[in-house]
Amino acid sequence: MDDTICAIATASGASGIAVIRVSGPQAIAICNQIFVAKNNSKALTSLAGYSICYGDIVSRGERIDETLVSLFRSPHSYTGEDTIEISCHGSTYIQHKILELLIENGCRLATPGEFTMRAFFNGKMDLSQAEAVADLITSTSAGMHKLAMSQMRGDFSRELSYLREQLVEFNSLIELELDFGEEDVEFADRNQLLSLATQIAELIGRLAESFSIGNVVKNGLPVAIIGEVNVGKSTLLNGLVGDDRAIVSDIPGTTRDSVEDVVNLSGIIFRFIDTAGIRPTSDEIERMGISRTFKQLEQAHIVLWVIDLTSDSAVIDSAYKQISPYLKGKKTILVFNKVDLLPEADRELSRNIFADISSDYLHISAQNGEDIQKLKQLLVSVAALPNIHSEDVIVTNLRHYEALIHAHEAIIRVIEGLNEQLTGDYISLDLRECSYYLGEITGEITTDEVLGSIFSRFCIGK
Amino acid sequence: MDDTICAIATASGASGIAVIRVSGPQAIAICNQIFVAKNNSKALTSLAGYSICYGDIVSRGERIDETLVSLFRSPHSYTGEDTIEISCHGSTYIQHKILELLIENGCRLATPGEFTMRAFFNGKMDLSQAEAVADLITSTSAGMHKLAMSQMRGDFSRELSYLREQLVEFNSLIELELDFGEEDVEFADRNQLLSLATQIAELIGRLAESFSIGNVVKNGLPVAIIGEVNVGKSTLLNGLVGDDRAIVSDIPGTTRDSVEDVVNLSGIIFRFIDTAGIRPTSDEIERMGISRTFKQLEQAHIVLWVIDLTSDSAVIDSAYKQISPYLKGKKTILVFNKVDLLPEADRELSRNIFADISSDYLHISAQNGEDIQKLKQLLVSVAALPNIHSEDVIVTNLRHYEALIHAHEAIIRVIEGLNEQLTGDYISLDLRECSYYLGEITGEITTDEVLGSIFSRFCIGK
Repeated sequence: MDDTICAIATASGASGIAVIRVSGPQAIAICNQIFVAKNNSKALTSLAGYSICYGDIVSRGERIDETLVSLFRSPHSYTGEDTIEISCHGSTYIQHKILELLIENGCRLATPGEFTMRAFFNGKMDLSQAEAVADLITSTSAGMHKLAMSQMRGDFSRELSYLREQLVEFNSLIELELDFGEEDVEFADRNQLLSLATQIAELIGRLAESFSIGNVVKNGLPVAIIGEVNVGKSTLLNGLVGDDRAIVSDIPGTTRDSVEDVVNLSGIIFRFIDTAGIRPTSDEIERMGISRTFKQLEQAHIVLWVIDLTSDSAVIDSAYKQISPYLKGKKTILVFNKVDLLPEADRELSRNIFADISSDYLHISAQNGEDIQKLKQLLVSVAALPNIHSEDVIVTNLRHYEALIHAHEAIIRVIEGLNEQLTGDYISLDLRECSYYLGEITGEITTDEVLGSIFSRFCIGK
Repeated sequence: MDDTICAIATASGASGIAVIRVSGPQAIAICNQIFVAKNNSKALTSLAGYSICYGDIVSRGERIDETLVSLFRSPHSYTGEDTIEISCHGSTYIQHKILELLIENGCRLATPGEFTMRAFFNGKMDLSQAEAVADLITSTSAGMHKLAMSQMRGDFSRELSYLREQLVEFNSLIELELDFGEEDVEFADRNQLLSLATQIAELIGRLAESFSIGNVVKNGLPVAIIGEVNVGKSTLLNGLVGDDRAIVSDIPGTTRDSVEDVVNLSGIIFRFIDTAGIRPTSDEIERMGISRTFKQLEQAHIVLWVIDLTSDSAVIDSAYKQISPYLKGKKTILVFNKVDLLPEADRELSRNIFADISSDYLHISAQNGEDIQKLKQLLVSVAALPNIHSEDVIVTNLRHYEALIHAHEAIIRVIEGLNEQLTGDYISLDLRECSYYLGEITGEITTDEVLGSIFSRFCIGK
């Protein structure tokens, strides 16, 4: 941390402007060596924080670019260190040339997330806030943005820190008891502790539960498209995904196994799962494929059941018998496909068979795109994500979730221990474990490994 | 120009930082409506120019992002107008949300190059400097960067403006003569004018000639790869281009017909042209293909002649007879290929046949990459671009080149007219035409069409 780092902070490629960030004790001095202010009078070193200087970046007498240099003085900067932001023309040549020049003059190229890591080490933010920065940058929907923003604001950390403080306090009382050894004193009121532990267990449990919502917001609401073979599932999927096909970044620690088709509809991310077609079969292998489809059904929050209107009624009936048992408790949308091949009057017939499955249904033609737009609207209304209020704390991070689960197990053991009137040394062990895991989330307790894995998720320049 | 424009000025995609630019009379007022400074005391409207404010972008009470806002007051900004630059987290969601918010509050989305166009209209730069900004942004090599930088500095414009001023002055004297009609006065000294015109013609001619250098720097040095069929031309091309394959932006007004393989070797851009293989043929169609190859040869500055060492000596001899007449005055590198299939001793044999063509030759294996690196070095040394000094004025822009050609034709007519002792009205016509075309380059004379075509080359946000 006593060296000075630099990186291009804006997205790569030619553009109007690019920003190069320099942070560390030598940031201002190094930039001063390669910068000549336009009026020639001011040196960067004499500039106040939060001000801008217009001038040239110069290398061996040759002008590299006309730039605007923003100056921030420690501790009033993102990293908490002296920081310079060079706003240059966005040519890749210029960006790399300036970076080269900075390195020549004593900077080191920053590793991914190193600016934010320094902000964490300098106490500008806690670990969960730092993680939220990465989430914020990759957020592509209103929901993801809202969650990252709330986590960055620190509500989550504050809540956990508060709990942890109380646990630590109680534990110190219990450990004090242990110091008195045989004397059988009780500084920590067991009833108070039981009530606190119960309260904490409830809160941690709620936070851990919120992960499933957080995960949906962050990674998309899983929607399974099921139906018999050849009813038009893949065509429907293409129609839904269409030009809205989202680019899904491959952030570790998400519940996705593979990159699936993800679409942002009215701010909600849907993750579509195309499944193998279902049909009655005696073939063992095919039966396995179909049972995999039913497995995928389990993960889905919403099921699109595609039914081919032109099928023979016996086939439709058999599909009904085969699939309907698996849809208990699922939000199902019935999608009657191939409406373009059917006279208007016949459309409602097959609907009746499925009346008990769901009241959400639509007649479409996946082939010519008829009413695909309506289906999208129906999906959005059925999705009905719990309305996330800005003040809600939602866990979106797998690392946090796992720490919460461990903390929850520990606090449950505390409660059990208190109920079974175990001695202080046992209870203290679990109390310490619980506060350890809570501390891991906010960064009060960290290991190099954890830090490394967190900040490697960042892009360089942040 | 009385409205306020906004655009994302950094490259698109998720990144640490993105910058949104706002410029126009309402820039500060509009941003003030959506920005809340962290200390809650300062309004943007009260801030001095060249200062930065830390705070939140807010929409209906909800925080969109924590940002740094840089403020510039007219005329001390890039555009010459009041300008705000919002430096936000580089999430695409946040970028678009802030843009939306700005538009809601009265901004208009900028068209490509509109910021620079405003800088031009507000007298912050002339037209050729504005054009250099676009070149600067797309520059990917040291040479391109140097030329754009020199043009941005305004040396080119200054030189032209100075010439133009003198022409205009002389012309006003001649037109004054015309006012006196029949009286046969001569205010403009014809000998002085002749000497000036000759001087200008020489200078314009030199500038126009520099275009071929400028074009090479900007679009790459054309290198034709020729040889008989199956000597390994395409394999060689792939080896040369390899991982260095450059992304070539499709800027209108370049001499390229199609996107070719472009590689940056030691700062020089090479543009490789793969040609159809040559062989003796009686087939009329194939003969046409081969004659096209010889056409491409004409444009090439450097020729890589690939010779298959394993060929029968009669075949090599025939190739020699067919190709060598076209290489007069070309820089040719002889590339003896398939060296891996030949005993060491035999390598020099065929070299002797070609001794009179070029002293630059190399034995390689395109297949296994042997000595491709040496070939690259040889290319760089053969290229020997005229060393461009920072003070040289080089024309890189097709529009400027064409205007110079027109101006040159006009000034030549002035000289002829003076020599033939034509009357003032004829001479005045050509003088005016010459200064018109010179004025078109610097923007003293513009049409909407010209401006439109210039600024549409820009990216949005510049």
